[in-house]
Amino acid sequence: MGILGVLGGMGPLATVDFMSKVILHTPASQDQDHIPMLVSSIPQVPDRTLAYRGEGASPLEAMLLNVKRLVVGGANGLVITCNTAHFWFDEIRKAAKLPMIHIADAALETAAKATGHHPTLGLLATDATVASGLYFSREVSDVYGGRIQAEWVLPTVIEMNELVMPGIMAVKAGNILEGRRLLSRAGSCLKRRGAIALVLGCSEIPIVLKCEDLDILLIDATDALAEKAVNWSMNYGFKGSGRKN
Amino acid sequence: MGILGVLGGMGPLATVDFMSKVILHTPASQDQDHIPMLVSSIPQVPDRTLAYRGEGASPLEAMLLNVKRLVVGGANGLVITCNTAHFWFDEIRKAAKLPMIHIADAALETAAKATGHHPTLGLLATDATVASGLYFSREVSDVYGGRIQAEWVLPTVIEMNELVMPGIMAVKAGNILEGRRLLSRAGSCLKRRGAIALVLGCSEIPIVLKCEDLDILLIDATDALAEKAVNWSMNYGFKGSGRKN
Repeated sequence: MGILGVLGGMGPLATVDFMSKVILHTPASQDQDHIPMLVSSIPQVPDRTLAYRGEGASPLEAMLLNVKRLVVGGANGLVITCNTAHFWFDEIRKAAKLPMIHIADAALETAAKATGHHPTLGLLATDATVASGLYFSREVSDVYGGRIQAEWVLPTVIEMNELVMPGIMAVKAGNILEGRRLLSRAGSCLKRRGAIALVLGCSEIPIVLKCEDLDILLIDATDALAEKAVNWSMNYGFKGSGRKN
Repeated sequence: MGILGVLGGMGPLATVDFMSKVILHTPASQDQDHIPMLVSSIPQVPDRTLAYRGEGASPLEAMLLNVKRLVVGGANGLVITCNTAHFWFDEIRKAAKLPMIHIADAALETAAKATGHHPTLGLLATDATVASGLYFSREVSDVYGGRIQAEWVLPTVIEMNELVMPGIMAVKAGNILEGRRLLSRAGSCLKRRGAIALVLGCSEIPIVLKCEDLDILLIDATDALAEKAVNWSMNYGFKGSGRKN
């Protein structure tokens, strides 16, 4: 099995959530059956959304330092458990020289399987993830394989400022109930405007939001990434398949 | 803050449990307030209990390889999230050349605070942890500081073979309900024989056993280790205090 490098810590609870989902996706009857992970949960990385807005330092240098810890430790592949950090995905891949799985690819593949060809998808994510087109720009990539073309419903500026971002910050601060309250309200707004499923495109959101909260299909990007990562690790070295992705 | 190296993967769920408890013990209002962790959750390590019994290969070589991943990645201190693996604590410390916190020290300190001077403590742990005296041999160390002297109540051979070890194995295989059922029964036996508190001295056990299951005080060794690790990291570099433990 390939050693999965996990660039985490953004935030710490989201890292634990990802690891838990990897364990749940792994067919295992004893310790040794589980896939090996080397995890950097080092949260001293400048805020990704502030950097994208031009209001704070770039997180790239700190992320590359933490990637290096995983590379020298022997990781064979790499995932990033923060959606917004994927804005720097290409630079990280160039430095790491490891196979990587993009979280939006994983989430969109899961959405394609679950919602058919022309779904209307709501996107719950940070201001930076929404504004950078992290999900839209991959819409026409080979992920969809021409199979589906989504219509997207986004949070408005007021919903982003009053519900989504404060909800994410509440989870990062450990205020789970407040996070759930705010993010549920944001999800309800997208549902009311026609979304048939919500893509949870920020790794703090699936920690608190469950399907039963909103009675709508949720596409958990963290869970989708975990599932793909397990498949990658378990097939590592077989027929060269582990070296792609 | 010091980067906490976590030698985990034994088992994977216990590693996630430890990380969650570190997060809960950390006063934080944003990502960057959380303590940095570099985590090896690589479970391809020979079974510790089988090795102690002389029935399987030693886990030491695999553990030292994984410790090296953490050392070269920049860890400033080290914990091991498996009680039984502490049988090799001194050899790991010698190789790592890093400050380490012993899980039994952490658990016994917590027990001393909670139960007074002469408690009768039940020990729920693997066959190897019980037989090696991992907890007893530290009984007269400076951890107690002469403050308490515990009487210990242990599982019988039948309880170990039919309840404790199968309960731990069930958790490792992801059978949470079965693990809880078996380990609760083992705990009840120790309670019936006079234990006023149970030391959960195997990191799979606190994943499934909660105080309300048994109506008895539980000393969660994983939680105690997490609390001490947070203090270590937050004081790292101040007055040289972070370099002890």
